[in-house]
Amino acid sequence: MDIKTYLADKRAKVDEALKRYMPGPHGHAGKLIEAMNYSLFAGGKRLRPILCISGAEAVGGDAEKVLPAACALEMIHTYSLIHDDLPAMDNDDLRRGKPTSHKTFGEAIAILAGDGLLTEAFAILARLELSGTGAADVIKKIIGLIATASGWQGMVGGQAMDILSEGKDIDSSIMGYIHSHKTGALITASVTSGAILGGCSQEHLNDITIYGQKIGLAFQIADDILDIEGNAEEMGKGTGGDSKKGKNTFPSVYGLNESKKILSESIDYAIEALGRFDTRADPLRHIARYISERKK
Amino acid sequence: MDIKTYLADKRAKVDEALKRYMPGPHGHAGKLIEAMNYSLFAGGKRLRPILCISGAEAVGGDAEKVLPAACALEMIHTYSLIHDDLPAMDNDDLRRGKPTSHKTFGEAIAILAGDGLLTEAFAILARLELSGTGAADVIKKIIGLIATASGWQGMVGGQAMDILSEGKDIDSSIMGYIHSHKTGALITASVTSGAILGGCSQEHLNDITIYGQKIGLAFQIADDILDIEGNAEEMGKGTGGDSKKGKNTFPSVYGLNESKKILSESIDYAIEALGRFDTRADPLRHIARYISERKK
Repeated sequence: MDIKTYLADKRAKVDEALKRYMPGPHGHAGKLIEAMNYSLFAGGKRLRPILCISGAEAVGGDAEKVLPAACALEMIHTYSLIHDDLPAMDNDDLRRGKPTSHKTFGEAIAILAGDGLLTEAFAILARLELSGTGAADVIKKIIGLIATASGWQGMVGGQAMDILSEGKDIDSSIMGYIHSHKTGALITASVTSGAILGGCSQEHLNDITIYGQKIGLAFQIADDILDIEGNAEEMGKGTGGDSKKGKNTFPSVYGLNESKKILSESIDYAIEALGRFDTRADPLRHIARYISERKK
Repeated sequence: MDIKTYLADKRAKVDEALKRYMPGPHGHAGKLIEAMNYSLFAGGKRLRPILCISGAEAVGGDAEKVLPAACALEMIHTYSLIHDDLPAMDNDDLRRGKPTSHKTFGEAIAILAGDGLLTEAFAILARLELSGTGAADVIKKIIGLIATASGWQGMVGGQAMDILSEGKDIDSSIMGYIHSHKTGALITASVTSGAILGGCSQEHLNDITIYGQKIGLAFQIADDILDIEGNAEEMGKGTGGDSKKGKNTFPSVYGLNESKKILSESIDYAIEALGRFDTRADPLRHIARYISERKK
C-alpha cells in the first residue's frame, strides 16, 4: 500500500466530515464559529482522526461509522493547540504557517474558541449512532475514554506539568509523564476508540493500546527532534523554540542520539504489538513508520 | 417546606459527592488538581446541581442517581467562572470573596484548571449508571443536551457575544441572546437533565424547559440588579463592576424599574409552567421565588 495516498484520502474524508459537523459563521455566534473554524481548518495533518479510522478498519470496522468520533478527536486536539499557543502558555505567534488564534481574534475569543471546540467534541460524540444491542453502552464507554485521556488524568495534566517544569531540570520520570500525558494519551485514545467502535475484542484492544502508547511516544520524540533539525519553512513555525523557552524535551534530557534510538525502538515496539492483526492493520503499521520519518 | 433548609441539605449532599468525584492533589497533576478543587470548593451556592436534583425529584426520580450529573453541571459552571475571570475576559481579582484562580495559580494553570473541569464533567457523565433498558441511551441524550447547552450554541456563544459587545450599545435582541445563552442555557439544561434522568414524560419536559428558561432569565436579571444594589461584603466581590466595564446589563438596557418588573414576571411565568406538576415540584417553585429574593 502507498501510505501517502492512504493518508491523503483519509484526510480528505475527515475534512469533509468536519465541514459537515461545523456550521459556517452565522448569527450572534458568528465570530466565535469563525475562530473555531479558523483553527480547525488550518491545515492539520488529521493524525488523530486517521488513527481512529485505521483503528476501526484494523478490526474490520466501518470507517464511515467512526467519522463523528474521528472529528471529535480532531476538535479536542485543535482546542489544545489554541490554548497551548496562548500568551500565558507557550506564547506562540505562528502555527502551521498562520498567525495563531489569539493573534487573529484576540485572547478572549481564542480561549472561547478552544472551549467551544472541546465542548462540541462531546456534543458530536453524544450524537454517534451505532446499530445493535449495547450500542449506546459502547458510545458511553468511548466518551469516558476520550474524556479521561483529555483531562487532568491525561492531556491537561501533561500540559500543566510541562508549564510548571519550564526552565527547571527534570528527571526522566517527569519527562516521561509529561509526554505520555500531553501527547500520548489522546493519540492512544484515538486508535483505541476507533478499535472499540469497530468491534475490537479485549485481547486485540490490549495490543492496540500498546501500539497507541508507543506511537504517541514516538510522535513526541520526533516532534522534539524536528524542533532542532527541522526546516522552519516546512514546519510552518519557528524551530528551536523549545530550547529558547527552557522546555524540557527528549533531546535536552537524553541527548539527540539517544532520543533517535528511543524513537526507532518505539516504532519497532508499536509494530510488534500488532503481531496478532492481519493485513487490515497495515495502515497502522505504515503510520508508525511515517511518524518517525515525517519532516513536519 | 422551608426552602433554606432544603437548599442547605442538598448543597451538603452535592459538596459531599463532589469530594468523592474529585481526588485530592497527588502525583504529577497535583498542582492542577489543587487549582481545580480551589475553585470547585470556593463556596458556590450549587444552584445548578440542586436544580438537577429537584428536577429529578419533581417527576418522582431518585436524587442519589442524578448526583453524578449534578456534579458534572457544577464543574462546567465552575470552569466557566474561572475562564470568565481571566485577564483577557472580565479581569476579575475576586470571586466569592477569594482571589480568583489566575490570581492564585497564575494564568496558565487557571486556564488548564478550567479545561480540566470541563473535561472531567464529561468523564463523570459517561460513568453515570442507570438501571433498565435504554439506560445508556438516556445518558447519551443527557451528555448531548449538556454539551450543546455549554458550547457555541449555548454558554460559550453567549460569553463570546458578551465580550464582543462590551462598551457598545446593543439592542434588546442581542441582550436577550447574551443572557439566554451565557447563563440561561446551562440553568435550563440543569433542570431538564435532572427531569430526563428522573424519567420525565415529553409533556412534562416541555413544561420544565419553560420553567428553566424563565428562572435562567430571572437569575441573570437578579444578578445584574445585585451588581447595582448589592452589598459588596455579602456578595464576596466588588459591586458596580458591570457598569465600570461597559457591560450591557438588563438595567443598562431596560432601566432598573423595568428590569425588576421583568424579573418578577419571569418568576411568575416559571411557576405557572409547573401547573401540571404535583407537590413534588414544590422545591422548584420555591427555588424560583428564592432566585428573585437572593441577596448574593
